[in-house]
Amino acid sequence: MMKEKTLGILGGLGPMATVYFYELLTAHTKAEKDQDHIDVVISGKATTPDRTAYIVGESDEDPTSFMVTEAEKLEKYGAELLVMPCNTAHFFYDSVRRSVSVPMLNIVEVTVEKCKALGAKKIGLLATRGTVETHVYERACRKYGLTVETPCEEDQNAVMEIIYGQIKQGKAPDLDRFLAVSERLAERGCERIVLGCTELSLVKKDCALSSRFVDSMEALAEAAILACGKETVGFEF
Amino acid sequence: MMKEKTLGILGGLGPMATVYFYELLTAHTKAEKDQDHIDVVISGKATTPDRTAYIVGESDEDPTSFMVTEAEKLEKYGAELLVMPCNTAHFFYDSVRRSVSVPMLNIVEVTVEKCKALGAKKIGLLATRGTVETHVYERACRKYGLTVETPCEEDQNAVMEIIYGQIKQGKAPDLDRFLAVSERLAERGCERIVLGCTELSLVKKDCALSSRFVDSMEALAEAAILACGKETVGFEF
Repeated sequence: MMKEKTLGILGGLGPMATVYFYELLTAHTKAEKDQDHIDVVISGKATTPDRTAYIVGESDEDPTSFMVTEAEKLEKYGAELLVMPCNTAHFFYDSVRRSVSVPMLNIVEVTVEKCKALGAKKIGLLATRGTVETHVYERACRKYGLTVETPCEEDQNAVMEIIYGQIKQGKAPDLDRFLAVSERLAERGCERIVLGCTELSLVKKDCALSSRFVDSMEALAEAAILACGKETVGFEF
Repeated sequence: MMKEKTLGILGGLGPMATVYFYELLTAHTKAEKDQDHIDVVISGKATTPDRTAYIVGESDEDPTSFMVTEAEKLEKYGAELLVMPCNTAHFFYDSVRRSVSVPMLNIVEVTVEKCKALGAKKIGLLATRGTVETHVYERACRKYGLTVETPCEEDQNAVMEIIYGQIKQGKAPDLDRFLAVSERLAERGCERIVLGCTELSLVKKDCALSSRFVDSMEALAEAAILACGKETVGFEF
């Protein structure tokens, strides 16, 4: 049996995404009692400067040193494996990973790997413009021999409206529009559609989307549970 | 303005209660962006020995040293205030608090204080038999000049059935029975009914209970937000 590991969660980016990841982790670990769960330590450094604003050049406040400091502190606390439950923050993944000596799962890579394991050769990406433009999914797809399609300009605008204008404001998402955007990616040959943004993970949670959709947060939770030496329960990929 | 504090959450007792507390904390902090939230660090030491089993004498595995170690590590990490989102674990509160030099909120005391601030002189307690028998609410009520009533034997059995036989197993709670037990406490003069167990907090969350019910997890979240120098939003006490 694999040695069980203490999981360090570099969170707070933002806080609700971290809450949701911890919930996924707990709900999908095979456990009959508290003691069967994974030991975790979570950093929720909410005051880390805005990642998107820095990436798109709207702010000079570099969040890297905040993230590196938290990763180092998690390792010092006893974390034996790190995860960062946020797609956008993976723009800074290399800097953070290099600062610690424990392994760190990559949400983008585990999601692409999951799609590959499910037989996909081409995936569609639904994410914020920030995640799309940093090309993190393109790089991961190249590594695993897959290709990635992103929505056309108009459809990307629709995705942004659903994320920022609807879900982030507590409104119900325009599901018809969401499915239409996804359908156009499927018509371009995408066997799986990646939900590469926590707000879109919540669409899957609340609207019972089909297994065509691969949620990056679920993929990360599954990979983390397995890497910590536990069994998973209840995932429907 | 009060200095903003980093909050340390001594969690994992159990994991889902910690998820719920972090969700309450995040949902009820007045914030327009990620950076307005509280910086937190969470210990989720799921493998801490069972608290109830030790309290009722069914196990010799003392969880105290586990909890003390995590509290010390949270302080070392940078936590400036501690909370422990679990009523039962407060049997060990004094030992944990003494092991750190930062302040630690007490879920039982903040809940009783909340009831007092709401004008109650007598409260009813709905909790596990473990929490009832450790008399933590009685002691806190004495300190604040309140009195506490607990359900009769038959009603306490009903509460245990709702907690262990229904909610912990993912079934819907028998709401009629729950309300009947509460009504009998109200008839004995209890102006407020304390939900002193996470499973019962979930009843309030899912069933829209009246403000007669004071949820200990909400009381702790409110006290933590204020003590960390933030404003709250959306509580309905």
